[in-house]
Amino acid sequence: MTIKAVTTPVIALDVMGGDAGLADVMAAAEVASERYPKLAFRLHGPETLIRAELARCPRLAATAEVVHTDDVVLGTDKPSQALRRSRTSSMGMAIQSVKDGKAHAAVSAGNTGALMAMALFALRTMPGIDRPALAALLPTLKNDSVVLDLGANTECDAENLVQFAVMGAAFARTVLGLERPRVALLNIGEEALKGTDEIRDAAALLRGATLPMRFEGFVEGDKIGQGNVDVIVTDGFSGNIALKTAEGTGKLVTGLLAQAFRSSWLTQLGYLLSRGALRALRAHLDPNAHNGAVFLGLNGIVVKSHGSANIRGIANAIGVAHDLIADSVGARISEDLANFRAHRPELPKAEVAAS
Amino acid sequence: MTIKAVTTPVIALDVMGGDAGLADVMAAAEVASERYPKLAFRLHGPETLIRAELARCPRLAATAEVVHTDDVVLGTDKPSQALRRSRTSSMGMAIQSVKDGKAHAAVSAGNTGALMAMALFALRTMPGIDRPALAALLPTLKNDSVVLDLGANTECDAENLVQFAVMGAAFARTVLGLERPRVALLNIGEEALKGTDEIRDAAALLRGATLPMRFEGFVEGDKIGQGNVDVIVTDGFSGNIALKTAEGTGKLVTGLLAQAFRSSWLTQLGYLLSRGALRALRAHLDPNAHNGAVFLGLNGIVVKSHGSANIRGIANAIGVAHDLIADSVGARISEDLANFRAHRPELPKAEVAAS
Repeated sequence: MTIKAVTTPVIALDVMGGDAGLADVMAAAEVASERYPKLAFRLHGPETLIRAELARCPRLAATAEVVHTDDVVLGTDKPSQALRRSRTSSMGMAIQSVKDGKAHAAVSAGNTGALMAMALFALRTMPGIDRPALAALLPTLKNDSVVLDLGANTECDAENLVQFAVMGAAFARTVLGLERPRVALLNIGEEALKGTDEIRDAAALLRGATLPMRFEGFVEGDKIGQGNVDVIVTDGFSGNIALKTAEGTGKLVTGLLAQAFRSSWLTQLGYLLSRGALRALRAHLDPNAHNGAVFLGLNGIVVKSHGSANIRGIANAIGVAHDLIADSVGARISEDLANFRAHRPELPKAEVAAS
Repeated sequence: MTIKAVTTPVIALDVMGGDAGLADVMAAAEVASERYPKLAFRLHGPETLIRAELARCPRLAATAEVVHTDDVVLGTDKPSQALRRSRTSSMGMAIQSVKDGKAHAAVSAGNTGALMAMALFALRTMPGIDRPALAALLPTLKNDSVVLDLGANTECDAENLVQFAVMGAAFARTVLGLERPRVALLNIGEEALKGTDEIRDAAALLRGATLPMRFEGFVEGDKIGQGNVDVIVTDGFSGNIALKTAEGTGKLVTGLLAQAFRSSWLTQLGYLLSRGALRALRAHLDPNAHNGAVFLGLNGIVVKSHGSANIRGIANAIGVAHDLIADSVGARISEDLANFRAHRPELPKAEVAAS
């Protein structure tokens, strides 16, 4: 392996993105600076406000370079509107910093569609990758699982899905610390004949490939929460539906639980006694603990923090960016793809035709 | 309205389907007979076993006709294998009873794929319906919602989605007792430009149509659990992923909750005090309370009980079949479709092309 490590990882931070506001985004960077003392920052946003806040963030102040702009991409802006402000907005300039080699990764909690569009336009896809994918972590009964794509690509062919699998496995090796992650394709059944042609062809390719992963075939939606696979690969439409349905169902059950506890003084007492354990449950499911979706497959690292993330959540997203830089995730993906191409398995045409 | 009501609804029951076993399936029919005294049954399965069990089911015995067969479709049988036994298996014969006019609806807890294939082959789609859809009820914070399609059609065009919306609304009017159900298309965003062409075209058609429903546009996966729409329309792939992810997440959260309560003697005491309310929570989420998926769009009613349903669950599935017969759901769907065709809105071509 000839991948060389970065000694001073630089994060280009969009301080204006998300619901948290500039002060919390910078507080998160301060937390991350404490956690990773080698990190340096480029802070993109209104200089006066940033300088005022830096007084409260000594660690961050020691490494931060401030790049002034007053232009902000709003949550309601369309990607096409945002694209026109690639060079003027805090989000666009953070990505530009990565493109210009002034930072190793960009982090923003802003408008996802705008961030995706600007990142793709500025950084372009890596050689060998047709489409970038958005990957994130999902809590399970065991360890977190990586799920991708989460909405960047509504329709995907078999080749896209194979590339997602390679990228997702590289991401899992970094953020979950696994040597050979277990990878599965999301499908509507576990039998080999289930699903679309694209999924079946992707399965045939992954089954025959030599990659640093264990390919486990198909996984159904009800198995995601069990944590028996580390990487769940799907097109952006199904991935978005699965992620959001999981979020919504989590809220439904905890909402019903809160109703249940409020129903009598006896249950309220029960709640008081169980409070500590219930807090642990909430912490396990808290999106802030799993924060940091990543656009994989671009010539540069772009991390999307959840729009409603708090200081801890944004600090975790910066941590994900740090780990991806430290592990040279891009180089790893290139290497795995080159390997896949060199030993590309044949698609079993006869079998596919017969089905 | 010239739809005439059925005076003696007859259910063709596959007593061999599902995990519950013949005795429980028949006990469920006994419960349903008690609940709906006018119901009559045709019981498809091994005559000796059925007769022995009928001794314990006086109400059922009074109305049941036994149709003997020893042939059973297994959970592991492929649809193609099952199709060959359309006239010999208990599942196939139950469907055949509907086709021959000897029953108004078939109910089975067996192999879903086999049931779908046999039902489609024997009953064919209704005039005006291109593809049947599998619809089921999902618990939410408020009332149940209808979701369809759940796996019958992995890929759908706009026309299919519109037909699903019409069928789902008719189903909701019957099982949820709503006059004008709120209908939405499952999508990866709520803005008009999100999703695939098929979904956007379906939205344009539904927005312009005069149908006994309120069309609410798009709904995202995280909103399913809130119960703000009554019918959620999607293709079979996404629907299956959403339904199963919701199931799996429900299990994940309740599993974590059980772990939390076991963590100390204090939390165990808390559990004991809250037990009654937690039981109500479990009951709210219990699939048996929402049992009875329906194949809509065929010339005949076919209800699929969940494979792992208990007596109460199977009785509920029979209840769904009863209600659909009583409401002449097929005639209502035909009427709504004819209405839609007569006043079919134009697709806004220019708008679509500009997007």
